[in-house]
Amino acid sequence: MKKVINDPKNVVDEMIKGYVLAYPNYVSRVEGTDVIARANKKENKVALISGGGSGHEPSHAGFLGTGMLDAAVCGAMFTSPTPDQVFEAIRAVATPTGVLLIIKNYSGDVMNFEVAMEMAEEEGIKVDKVIVDDDVAVENSTYTVGRRGIAGTVLVHKIAGAIAESGASLEEVKEMAEHVIKNTRSMGMALTPCYMPETKEPSFTLADDEMEIGLGIHGEPGVYKDKIKTADEITNVLLGKVLDDMKLQANDEVVVLVNGLGATPLMEMFIANKTIHHILNEKGIKVYDTMIGEYMTSMEMAGFSITLLKLDETLKTLYKQTADTPAWKQF
Amino acid sequence: MKKVINDPKNVVDEMIKGYVLAYPNYVSRVEGTDVIARANKKENKVALISGGGSGHEPSHAGFLGTGMLDAAVCGAMFTSPTPDQVFEAIRAVATPTGVLLIIKNYSGDVMNFEVAMEMAEEEGIKVDKVIVDDDVAVENSTYTVGRRGIAGTVLVHKIAGAIAESGASLEEVKEMAEHVIKNTRSMGMALTPCYMPETKEPSFTLADDEMEIGLGIHGEPGVYKDKIKTADEITNVLLGKVLDDMKLQANDEVVVLVNGLGATPLMEMFIANKTIHHILNEKGIKVYDTMIGEYMTSMEMAGFSITLLKLDETLKTLYKQTADTPAWKQF
Repeated sequence: MKKVINDPKNVVDEMIKGYVLAYPNYVSRVEGTDVIARANKKENKVALISGGGSGHEPSHAGFLGTGMLDAAVCGAMFTSPTPDQVFEAIRAVATPTGVLLIIKNYSGDVMNFEVAMEMAEEEGIKVDKVIVDDDVAVENSTYTVGRRGIAGTVLVHKIAGAIAESGASLEEVKEMAEHVIKNTRSMGMALTPCYMPETKEPSFTLADDEMEIGLGIHGEPGVYKDKIKTADEITNVLLGKVLDDMKLQANDEVVVLVNGLGATPLMEMFIANKTIHHILNEKGIKVYDTMIGEYMTSMEMAGFSITLLKLDETLKTLYKQTADTPAWKQF
Repeated sequence: MKKVINDPKNVVDEMIKGYVLAYPNYVSRVEGTDVIARANKKENKVALISGGGSGHEPSHAGFLGTGMLDAAVCGAMFTSPTPDQVFEAIRAVATPTGVLLIIKNYSGDVMNFEVAMEMAEEEGIKVDKVIVDDDVAVENSTYTVGRRGIAGTVLVHKIAGAIAESGASLEEVKEMAEHVIKNTRSMGMALTPCYMPETKEPSFTLADDEMEIGLGIHGEPGVYKDKIKTADEITNVLLGKVLDDMKLQANDEVVVLVNGLGATPLMEMFIANKTIHHILNEKGIKVYDTMIGEYMTSMEMAGFSITLLKLDETLKTLYKQTADTPAWKQF
């Protein structure tokens, strides 16, 4: 596998350097750590922190800025950040209003973020957490008890970010984040693996004519392997599973997020989106907004996921609030 | 090669449908054509039109909206739009102030856009053109006399879009677009080809340990093939060639655009960006803004290009004007 890198051991450090150089008005690195913090820190709001293994860019550092996150912790490749690193993030951005950790549901992430939370509480920092588990593909997985957290996490960043920016209390921000999590479901598929920089090993294997439905963003096994099907058939399967789980009614309103895993062209996601809108339209489900692009990737993996967020009036208002971050700008 | 598509013959039509469904507030399709037009049409400004073969998404339809383009013509895969299609675009968005065509320098594109221009002039429409040729890699190429137009084209969209939005005359918008073109240089490289949906043929071939420096966005030959090098070495070569051509001085200010060709992870582009900033910093060249992402792709090709735009005070002011489009949002 060919990659544009230098020493594979340094990819995360060099990525952070290059990222911070690109967006000095948005972010800065917390010295001596792999934590990136929002540049225009606000004192009178709940600080939102997310993170996880690297390799999912633009998640999570891409969402630092007004109306979204305050710090992102960059673990090693596909590896949970250590409790110390998460603790550094908390210390860097904590405010008297409190800190909320937005954790994707992987056992290592949950454990390490929770240890960091205890460390912060011992220092008198007010901190709480939510765990995102939007992936309806499988219950329990290689690295997870329960459902995995995938692309829907960025919708939690957005909505929790909007209410935090408004000056809400830690309890209110946490409650709203949990409300988003309850109303967000995702399902993905992959056509190719990604490759770890150090080992050059593929994250999983698939035959030249195969796809895997429900595969995780680290290459965790999905629901089944199959011969590759048409975009319409694939979209029907993914969206069908999401809809089965959500039990939406006619006139419900949703945000659609079509997330590319890294190597899937926009063209293919637009084609899938045509079918998504067709299916939703047939059921009388209204699309409030559609997002198509790379939000939670797996390096150069080919494939995509579909996320639906079921809206109510409060979620709609928060969704539409201003966000100004490198990877999500909303007027 | 695996793709998420239905009938390969319909990829462009289905892509347009899915794209327009995603962004109804930004765009609409001109009925019976493969032209996409800005939704909030303004009558008292120069209308900007770009386009070319499909397969380079988000170019060009991603840049439709306030402060950028008014229509995008979607040709068949890697194929120039026909004069009729370009003419439909001109008719759809023409205003009394005039129409400017922003053409990437490929012989087919130039010819077909020029024929459409003549058709429009015969109908009394005021129309002019600029030709973007930012790629310093090669003089003359498979589809081009002179230099090719690549990712720098989106900077022309941005700046010409800003001055057009301000109500400038056709002559002024054209002059400014040409000023951007003169001050924009790009150079790219590729690690893998892309594959045409109908034939499944690769756009070119490379060995498993090879890269091609200076390769075009349709797979046109570059400057040379080489064993793959480190990110630092690759960046030095690409940026070196751009700098040789631009003859920048200490204290000059530039916009840096690191453009992914489709399958290259953001992580790798951030790593390259670290080196770009290091090299520019050593020469005393100031970076006014950095853009990293996919702006002009080649489906699932792996690789990236580096573009520099040399700024002056006028270009800076226009660069920073509001843009509100699906693929470029600027507050």
